[in-house]
Amino acid sequence: MRRWNGWGDDQFNLELPANGSAFLAERIGGAQPLPDATLESVLARVPETRLPHHEKVSTDAETRVRHARGQSLADWLAMRSGEFGVFPDGVAFPESSEDARELLQCAAHTGAIVIPYGGGTSVAGHINPNESDKPVLTISLARMNRLLDLDHESHIATFGAGTPGPLLEAQLKAEGYTLGHFPQSFELSTVGGWVASRSSGQQSLRYGRIEQLFAGGRMETPRGPLTIPTIPASSAGPDIREMIMGSEGRMGLITEVKVRVTPLPEKEAFHVLFFPSWATARDASRSLVQSRVQLSMIRVSNARETETQLALAGHEKLIGTLEKFLAFRGVGDGKCMMTLGLTGSKTQCRAALREVRRICKAHRGVYTGTHMGSKWAEKRFTMPYLREALWQMGYAVDTLETATDWDNVDNMINRVEDNLRYGLSEDNEAVHVFTHLSHFYTQGCSIYTTYVFRTADDYVTTHARWQKLKQSTSQLIVENRGTISHQHGVGKDHAPYLPVEKGELGMEAIRSLCDLFDPDARLNPGTLLQEDSGS
Amino acid sequence: MRRWNGWGDDQFNLELPANGSAFLAERIGGAQPLPDATLESVLARVPETRLPHHEKVSTDAETRVRHARGQSLADWLAMRSGEFGVFPDGVAFPESSEDARELLQCAAHTGAIVIPYGGGTSVAGHINPNESDKPVLTISLARMNRLLDLDHESHIATFGAGTPGPLLEAQLKAEGYTLGHFPQSFELSTVGGWVASRSSGQQSLRYGRIEQLFAGGRMETPRGPLTIPTIPASSAGPDIREMIMGSEGRMGLITEVKVRVTPLPEKEAFHVLFFPSWATARDASRSLVQSRVQLSMIRVSNARETETQLALAGHEKLIGTLEKFLAFRGVGDGKCMMTLGLTGSKTQCRAALREVRRICKAHRGVYTGTHMGSKWAEKRFTMPYLREALWQMGYAVDTLETATDWDNVDNMINRVEDNLRYGLSEDNEAVHVFTHLSHFYTQGCSIYTTYVFRTADDYVTTHARWQKLKQSTSQLIVENRGTISHQHGVGKDHAPYLPVEKGELGMEAIRSLCDLFDPDARLNPGTLLQEDSGS
Repeated sequence: MRRWNGWGDDQFNLELPANGSAFLAERIGGAQPLPDATLESVLARVPETRLPHHEKVSTDAETRVRHARGQSLADWLAMRSGEFGVFPDGVAFPESSEDARELLQCAAHTGAIVIPYGGGTSVAGHINPNESDKPVLTISLARMNRLLDLDHESHIATFGAGTPGPLLEAQLKAEGYTLGHFPQSFELSTVGGWVASRSSGQQSLRYGRIEQLFAGGRMETPRGPLTIPTIPASSAGPDIREMIMGSEGRMGLITEVKVRVTPLPEKEAFHVLFFPSWATARDASRSLVQSRVQLSMIRVSNARETETQLALAGHEKLIGTLEKFLAFRGVGDGKCMMTLGLTGSKTQCRAALREVRRICKAHRGVYTGTHMGSKWAEKRFTMPYLREALWQMGYAVDTLETATDWDNVDNMINRVEDNLRYGLSEDNEAVHVFTHLSHFYTQGCSIYTTYVFRTADDYVTTHARWQKLKQSTSQLIVENRGTISHQHGVGKDHAPYLPVEKGELGMEAIRSLCDLFDPDARLNPGTLLQEDSGS
Repeated sequence: MRRWNGWGDDQFNLELPANGSAFLAERIGGAQPLPDATLESVLARVPETRLPHHEKVSTDAETRVRHARGQSLADWLAMRSGEFGVFPDGVAFPESSEDARELLQCAAHTGAIVIPYGGGTSVAGHINPNESDKPVLTISLARMNRLLDLDHESHIATFGAGTPGPLLEAQLKAEGYTLGHFPQSFELSTVGGWVASRSSGQQSLRYGRIEQLFAGGRMETPRGPLTIPTIPASSAGPDIREMIMGSEGRMGLITEVKVRVTPLPEKEAFHVLFFPSWATARDASRSLVQSRVQLSMIRVSNARETETQLALAGHEKLIGTLEKFLAFRGVGDGKCMMTLGLTGSKTQCRAALREVRRICKAHRGVYTGTHMGSKWAEKRFTMPYLREALWQMGYAVDTLETATDWDNVDNMINRVEDNLRYGLSEDNEAVHVFTHLSHFYTQGCSIYTTYVFRTADDYVTTHARWQKLKQSTSQLIVENRGTISHQHGVGKDHAPYLPVEKGELGMEAIRSLCDLFDPDARLNPGTLLQEDSGS
């Protein structure tokens, strides 16, 4: 069953190898876990619903608990402490666009606020209800999870918006296709959520971001349905698809999503190379993407992430052998790991590998084959489970991500890492920080930074530490030409930082669209646009 | 000097070969040209300006004539007959964003309507002033035509929005880069116009549409400047860039454009293949794009276009030899030509060619090498001059284009071609119609149809014939799942058809953005959104 207070399936646990915990203890000290609240204690604190009875709305306490929070570290602290604050007054499960429309109308009658809910994997507070004097109805698309249509000529698949990653890929695979959208949240996040939050997957270099995959569909708005027809490309005015993507439940309920799918590739493999330094690894990756080498993924870990990954991988002996081999090839301390996805026809993969080896050799990269890449691919969606393992050891983990132009990448990484690393020095706490680049564009790349710190003696202090790190680093990101989010959206946590990148007129433009579709400001208040928070 | 009443440089003329005119005469009959009005007669009809004196505004008659019309066939008929109807009251030439802003303020003071003007190549009436009781100020960005900045790390170039294609590429080439955006209007159209009208170039398969190339920039709006920062990709809410692209001068004056550029390719060649039938050529092209073969261009002519191109190419003997060779290989009557662009590193081009030959062979394609492709590439931007040559023989030429999903491509071509071919049968006039596919997506492609008919004995009847063909076919396109424009924008001519594809709420969304940036509806009325036409 899905965990009510953390990530994923409660039958699945990821163990940290012994040398992994030693590594962390050495870096930031040994830790003591905080006590977890029980589900029973939380259920006892769920207040009476303020919603009238409706046959499609569940108002039982557990359903409300299970739809109250996402997966940000703040959400974790709320869930583990039992201090949820606000719960939705009920959760509806529409089975069709008509159901969704009827529920919206019903919410309008009762004056309820509506929160659209996909997989509940937001790390930015998208689906958390704010304190309000109006009842809150969360509408989960979970029951709209079917492949509704597949056009074998145009390679367009139509899905219910609540279809989660594995179910989406399984239904496509049976027909010989893939969407190729693999965010780390893949196990739980949904195709409608990907659209609403402008998601990006690990192999976006081949398949594109959701912007390139979303071909059209249907959104139920308080003003009525909006149907977006599928057209391959158009110069006929601003693109309505682009207004919906990133709307984060502020404009309507996305109920049906048409996506561009691809026949399953003939070949796919993940190759790993090591570079003697950050500069060589970074330059090689930039050269690969700017040379348009046909890759499905590039991932470059900085020295600290490389070291951390090797330490946390277990297999001490194997890793030792690898390190000896690399040292012999001139790649020692400070080495950086690059993982490449090669996907496509045999000819395409062969040509790409030839170019990879040529370009990487020029940057002193050492090629190690596909063994480590296969291991990465096997475990690619289990990383979120590591948070559970670390939590139980007394460590809190969070990530921050942005994207910026190439000329600014080093500046951004250094500022973000330093700000996190020394962010708790007043408390005499060390923070373990490491970074990788994971999404590549000719113009720049995404920057994904992970930070680990010890939980304090109580939840309130732990939350304050997180908030300090998160807020100061978010401010720093937008002040330094970064987007507040490359792949996780705005939600409530990032909303204060959005105006820096959108500008005053840009913010007005987004608001005018929200007002148009949702004139009574009924949908997901406080998400995306800050100032009407809690109103 | 640029022609005041037609396309391009008046020193450049394209001759139709003798067998070309015989071919047309045989198809739709011999023709008599209509008489052209002289520039002097038109100048004499330009009324007094209604604008007050301003040092940056030209109000002389010739400047106003030269900025009154675009390049649609309706514009041609107006220019050749001398019946312009409305002229702008003046034309301003800002040299900076500050100038542009000042001119906008000045227009607000005098109550003038403002028409932003790039290269004047619109084929949909974008820059034509409507009849109005307010004075009309056309603002040409022609003097803002410089490369302002080039970031060699991030591969971003900043241009004045009025930079036309050749000047843009020349400035980039000097630094080792290309933008790779080659619409057929390349000689005259500008980077700002490309953004404003969501343009697409011939090699968009490699370089992307303007949507993929436009990284940010600056727009002066009546509400003040909007600056869009460069960020490689973002999930932080709806993308402001996407609201500006396709705004067609309704939201502001785009003054500065930042574009993603590419190092000049190691290798580029255009290859030509012939297929025995439309079905084989179409299926081969679909397979190429859906297999993600790394091409920069695919272009597939249907049988009638192939026949027309071979007839109009001259070189009768060479073509005869080619046709014998093809017939020997089983490719005879009904054959269809495919032109492919291969651009990139040597390894990439070699791999692509291998895949091209494998896939096309499976569809019975016959490979003929790069000779014809080189000829095509040489002449790629001179095709608009053919209109002049045909006009002088008494033939009117126009094109219609759309894009649709693969499952609908044949249906669309057949309907569009039939509607045009028999569209003048009441007048006992034949129309010569042919089509190619020119922009390819996994989901579908663009469809570009050319039609040639004889001018009538007078301009009024000729215009009525054009209008009949254009209007009925436009209606048919949007009723059959096509966009009203894949690459030419909406302007005034396509505005009536836009609501079918955008839907009622979608139209409201676009209007709300126009209203936000331009609350007094001062900018380009009647373009993009129909109903305030001429108000």
